[in-house]
Amino acid sequence: MSLLAPWARGPSRLLRCQRALLASGVRGRGAAGPGQPQPEQQLTIRRQQDGIRTIILNNPKKRNALSLRMLKSLQNDILHDAESKDLRVIIISAEGPVFSSGHDLKELTEQQGQDYHAEVFQTCAEVMMLIQKHPVPIIAKVNGLATAAGCQLVASCDIALASEKSYFATPGVNIGLFCSTPAVALGRAVPKKVALEMLFTGEPITAQEALLHGLLSKVVPEEKLEEETMKIAQKICTMSRSVVAVGKATFYRQLTQDLKIAYHLTSQAMVDNLATQDGKEGITAFIQKRKPVWSHS
Amino acid sequence: MSLLAPWARGPSRLLRCQRALLASGVRGRGAAGPGQPQPEQQLTIRRQQDGIRTIILNNPKKRNALSLRMLKSLQNDILHDAESKDLRVIIISAEGPVFSSGHDLKELTEQQGQDYHAEVFQTCAEVMMLIQKHPVPIIAKVNGLATAAGCQLVASCDIALASEKSYFATPGVNIGLFCSTPAVALGRAVPKKVALEMLFTGEPITAQEALLHGLLSKVVPEEKLEEETMKIAQKICTMSRSVVAVGKATFYRQLTQDLKIAYHLTSQAMVDNLATQDGKEGITAFIQKRKPVWSHS
Amino acid sequence: MSLLAPWARGPSRLLRCQRALLASGVRGRGAAGPGQPQPEQQLTIRRQQDGIRTIILNNPKKRNALSLRMLKSLQNDILHDAESKDLRVIIISAEGPVFSSGHDLKELTEQQGQDYHAEVFQTCAEVMMLIQKHPVPIIAKVNGLATAAGCQLVASCDIALASEKSYFATPGVNIGLFCSTPAVALGRAVPKKVALEMLFTGEPITAQEALLHGLLSKVVPEEKLEEETMKIAQKICTMSRSVVAVGKATFYRQLTQDLKIAYHLTSQAMVDNLATQDGKEGITAFIQKRKPVWSHS
Repeated sequence: MSLLAPWARGPSRLLRCQRALLASGVRGRGAAGPGQPQPEQQLTIRRQQDGIRTIILNNPKKRNALSLRMLKSLQNDILHDAESKDLRVIIISAEGPVFSSGHDLKELTEQQGQDYHAEVFQTCAEVMMLIQKHPVPIIAKVNGLATAAGCQLVASCDIALASEKSYFATPGVNIGLFCSTPAVALGRAVPKKVALEMLFTGEPITAQEALLHGLLSKVVPEEKLEEETMKIAQKICTMSRSVVAVGKATFYRQLTQDLKIAYHLTSQAMVDNLATQDGKEGITAFIQKRKPVWSHS
Repeated sequence: MSLLAPWARGPSRLLRCQRALLASGVRGRGAAGPGQPQPEQQLTIRRQQDGIRTIILNNPKKRNALSLRMLKSLQNDILHDAESKDLRVIIISAEGPVFSSGHDLKELTEQQGQDYHAEVFQTCAEVMMLIQKHPVPIIAKVNGLATAAGCQLVASCDIALASEKSYFATPGVNIGLFCSTPAVALGRAVPKKVALEMLFTGEPITAQEALLHGLLSKVVPEEKLEEETMKIAQKICTMSRSVVAVGKATFYRQLTQDLKIAYHLTSQAMVDNLATQDGKEGITAFIQKRKPVWSHS
Repeated sequence: MSLLAPWARGPSRLLRCQRALLASGVRGRGAAGPGQPQPEQQLTIRRQQDGIRTIILNNPKKRNALSLRMLKSLQNDILHDAESKDLRVIIISAEGPVFSSGHDLKELTEQQGQDYHAEVFQTCAEVMMLIQKHPVPIIAKVNGLATAAGCQLVASCDIALASEKSYFATPGVNIGLFCSTPAVALGRAVPKKVALEMLFTGEPITAQEALLHGLLSKVVPEEKLEEETMKIAQKICTMSRSVVAVGKATFYRQLTQDLKIAYHLTSQAMVDNLATQDGKEGITAFIQKRKPVWSHS
């Protein structure tokens, strides 16, 4: 159940890019093929190798809708062994031509009731805030359409790469449900005017526009998306996990403070960083012109 | 009375683009022609059709200076029947080659006195804040030069489209009056360094630069400006007025909060949205694969 | 002692652009030539002419590392005669192919101790905040690589121009020292995702990317850098120093306030501005179509 309005007068840009994505087809086939997930199948797939955890949204048949089950599965995969030294970076990607179409609208009907609705939005907000609180960098890798809470997920990640064919939209207004929670993340990633045009019209922006306005870190040709994402992930794996963790936490903490408090917080963070084992090792190794050996603590 | 400094050494970029605009002439003729507004004429023109209100700044001879009278006329046109269901979106545009040159400097002389000056700036700030508080989206449609408080007006709108030939500047510093109130809106729309270069030098930026930096939502060829603006306005008219109104208010309310409060506010807004008549209708219509019928309440 | 990690696997982009810069050589020669600074030489050079003060980071052999001595020399040069009417604008530039590589890592070893480290970061933060508090506009003129606290210095200036070949990075994470203090300025200049990718990977961005994301005001060919910077500086010199000073202070003061308070502050600032000698002169001269004569008070 997607946010794509079937009654739209004439083919909107969203409809058109949808069709293009579906027509391109290669991955779309998978959704209808033998590999499609059954109800009892996992909605997300978690893999981990060499410090890099990949979490794949795996319900392409339902356009990777962020149902409550999907959100909890994603939350679980992000939280799993979060403190392990073997985990250095997380990549969130998706199976099929749609990264995610946002909430499952079948969960937002009157029958489900307000308590259920509240649980859906609260869980979604928890996942989005978890991304910032998590000790390792979390990268969105987008190859296709990301709408509503799917767009919010991209906006909430620390880093986001997308293929050139990707599109981003907050089309809830089309079905009478303004994307107010996605707007929290979107409004903090792109200029006000860009966010409001997306929110008021529901029209998508291209990957290139998303990059221009700050929603993405990088846009690459589809065939380079895996390689470029892995390059960033592998680079992060060469760093000290503990240095990255404290750096990430400090970054988000200082960002909302005024300049004086921000410098007070971060100057102390620098002094503390230098006193850690990896801080000392890094400086020493550099001066000795050798590669540092991290303890990750 | 414009902010264009006649004593500038050599032709500055502002002067040059001014001349280009005046030389292009087609609309400029209107200003000196028989259609020019007389003192008793309305400074703004308000038209409304099919939910779209167009407010035209209509004093091209005075470069649409935002005199106190003009500001009050604009305020009045924005406020008129603001709660009517027949009003869905407002477009602010201008007659002549200058969208607006900002305050009327004749109102800012020593003779006018501090109380009058205070009333001018206070009224101007009220109009700018009214745009955010208004229940319907307000779009700036710019075809020409927008300077000082004219640039502030563009920056204050929810959405802003401009033709390729448009320019934006905050040149008050040239005449010893730093654009401090325009800087409130400008500094929240573009990066600090872009705002400060504009404020310190008075030099204009092109429409393309304004788009790049977040001051505009879209830049289009002059001959497409009307069509593209109407496309957005008409799209907004297909939405539920009440959903858009709550969405807009929630957007601005959450934007200045910290992430946790922002998500608390908006999660509640989503639950409430779903409980409204149009929220229920939207989801139901979508599941039934039919076009929703909005009550706009 | 630079942040360039000699043990990096394969030539990173940072390494590559470093080599390109060093290979281009023209200015690099200076560093090793007879003109190189001796320990007793000034780490910064201060020149002033026609209202324009140029401060040159002058330790190219050490890649203009912001040692405590360099920071204090820079602070001193910025503060020198700050209230003089003869000073209207400051340009910070650098000798050699590296604008600045950030802190001197030899000052951040365990032997130096935590108190020394704290003094380094505190002094650095003071210099960065001084730039905002200073009465005249401060322009960074970058021709080469700016990393870590060097990048922070660029981000902290009011205006920043760079040549096309310039690069910007926060590579501290490579040596186990997360660029948390540079992130204060960087995170307020560019979108969150751009800042975090730079901070987590240490990889540089080009001048063009820095412009796109708001870290720079302007990018020009290397041979135009001097001319374009001087054009902005000279334009600022034609303005009233006192009007610019109050405008700058008001800009930073209102930027972190909510909209209502921001408009309250700035409306009052406009009324006050009009009551100053230069405010009155500016309006009068404009109406009389003559060039204003500033008292700068």
